[in-house]
Amino acid sequence: MSNSVHQDKIYQKLATIRHPEIPAQNLVTLGMIPSISIEQEIVQVTLALPNLEVPVKQEIIRMIHESLSNLSEKYKIEIHPEEMTPEQKSIFFDFAKKARIIHQKSSKIGKVLAVMSGKGGVGKSSVAGLLASSLRRLGLQVGILDADITGPSIPMMFGIDQRPRQSQEGLFPIQSRTGIKLISINLLLPDKDQPVVWRGPMISKAIEQFWADIIWGNLDYLVVDLPPGTADAALTVMQSLPLDGIILVTSPQDLAGMVVRKAANMAKAIGIPLIGLIENMSHTICPHCGEIIDIFGTSKAESTARMIETTLLAHLPLDPQFAEKCDNGTIENHKSDILDRIADKITKSYAAANITS
Amino acid sequence: MSNSVHQDKIYQKLATIRHPEIPAQNLVTLGMIPSISIEQEIVQVTLALPNLEVPVKQEIIRMIHESLSNLSEKYKIEIHPEEMTPEQKSIFFDFAKKARIIHQKSSKIGKVLAVMSGKGGVGKSSVAGLLASSLRRLGLQVGILDADITGPSIPMMFGIDQRPRQSQEGLFPIQSRTGIKLISINLLLPDKDQPVVWRGPMISKAIEQFWADIIWGNLDYLVVDLPPGTADAALTVMQSLPLDGIILVTSPQDLAGMVVRKAANMAKAIGIPLIGLIENMSHTICPHCGEIIDIFGTSKAESTARMIETTLLAHLPLDPQFAEKCDNGTIENHKSDILDRIADKITKSYAAANITS
Repeated sequence: MSNSVHQDKIYQKLATIRHPEIPAQNLVTLGMIPSISIEQEIVQVTLALPNLEVPVKQEIIRMIHESLSNLSEKYKIEIHPEEMTPEQKSIFFDFAKKARIIHQKSSKIGKVLAVMSGKGGVGKSSVAGLLASSLRRLGLQVGILDADITGPSIPMMFGIDQRPRQSQEGLFPIQSRTGIKLISINLLLPDKDQPVVWRGPMISKAIEQFWADIIWGNLDYLVVDLPPGTADAALTVMQSLPLDGIILVTSPQDLAGMVVRKAANMAKAIGIPLIGLIENMSHTICPHCGEIIDIFGTSKAESTARMIETTLLAHLPLDPQFAEKCDNGTIENHKSDILDRIADKITKSYAAANITS
Repeated sequence: MSNSVHQDKIYQKLATIRHPEIPAQNLVTLGMIPSISIEQEIVQVTLALPNLEVPVKQEIIRMIHESLSNLSEKYKIEIHPEEMTPEQKSIFFDFAKKARIIHQKSSKIGKVLAVMSGKGGVGKSSVAGLLASSLRRLGLQVGILDADITGPSIPMMFGIDQRPRQSQEGLFPIQSRTGIKLISINLLLPDKDQPVVWRGPMISKAIEQFWADIIWGNLDYLVVDLPPGTADAALTVMQSLPLDGIILVTSPQDLAGMVVRKAANMAKAIGIPLIGLIENMSHTICPHCGEIIDIFGTSKAESTARMIETTLLAHLPLDPQFAEKCDNGTIENHKSDILDRIADKITKSYAAANITS
């Protein structure tokens, strides 16, 4: 081979180009690059489009030129747009269907709220579970999408281990005692101790399916419980789901604050509004003498909230009885006045926004 | 285009084939598929090999046939092995160098221990930091590789924020007050609140570089602090690093136990020995009345250890003063008798194994 540029290298480069209108998909996986040929220092790239008049055509051509510009000086790049074959169109629209702009056929979902922290073990799932329970007590239709694929906690907190029912249209979520609709990877595993040893793309795909292929029905609120970190799961939820806002959870430790600030900065970079910050495990009350103990040190929530420019919604205590309820699947029995107040505040602010808009 | 099979589809399929001898790399990224042509129902795949006599040649050919077998019945697959060009060889060996089979040029690393949980916030990083400090007090050369790319805690615990020095051979780790060598993504970021918004493959690459491209020097022990989850970071550490054993960390909650069992099952599936289980935040002592409080409920560590067939190494209390030391960067000042005992036990068991082997 005398070519010093190879097709695989070009495919690799084109695979980094995101489609401007289809989140989380690149030109190669969308089947838009059916062929590349390299002859006499000319790289010919065929660009397949659903139709030749799509408004993004020029932008995509520009992105391909830009991406291949540093390939090698001696090569000329030629891009040949052509209309997709029916088969290519079907692949393309199948991907587009899964993406943000296309909602589920069967479901009508009101507001989508994510509970996030960046840091693990600060009580994201507890907050997600309590918030959903509070919203449900307001008489609303509520769902929880457990986006923690490798460490799912939601089913155990709600005492649920049934397998979701499959229909031709998709999977039905499981209903909790109070009627909250839940989906979690642990409901789909034959054994809940089985690890889900998946690399990022598989995790993203599972989350996208939990959004698109679940028959949620009509929901006023869908609460998304995110895993720790700012990697694939968080990215997919932020890029592929139509999030209305994020609730951040922290603990009094500086360490937690630092990681939560990372999460907040990620949300800001992607452009998702922060609803506010909840400090969990703020303190506990000694069951023996009744005194307050700052188990994780002094609260730093005020300064964390200021640094990330959001509202401090609440300090939640660490309550051993609550931990027990999470373990025995009765989180819904725990009426949290603090979360009730937050749920009330959230619903009222969205209602007000709807009136003014 | 009359072809119903396209090059990009074939590239996608071949990109799922792992090289049998180079962990975490596929045929396409290794540059082994310089070209594919499709003509008259024959798919011709060029397979570039570092030399035509490599022992894995037949296995790779078999894998390609298998991967393309369900492409379409009407296509014939032809594979043409050829020797790589010097440029292709250089890309190929660059990737191979990063993989497990090639160790660092400059470093001699004794035992590699990972601290893992699956669950977030149970104190993996605290245990990793305490264990490294205990090993160091035994007079050993110790390093910590912070594999938590999206939520790194190690630098803050050790009070370190210098930038690692770069030389031609690689990056030098930062030395802590007592001489522990540390590397963490947070030492490389301009601002520690900056999120690392990376998908899995980038995270894996960073961890591989922390292993291969850091000038660790001579270490008796390298402690790897894993993030929560059983996805990319855990997989890369288990597959690409020569781990000698895993210490699992849990908390008294059932929820944590369930996720820790997932982690244990992953380690078993990959064949990494479990050293034992540490239950963290077992209880706390009220600073007002001195009574013991089971903040996360009753301990379930005995039964968890039995279920995953490993030793219960210790119950660690939750100590607000310790949390403060982690926050102000003086974890090394915290002498933990429990971790000292565990460090002693670990070093003695490896010494005994060396004598018998």
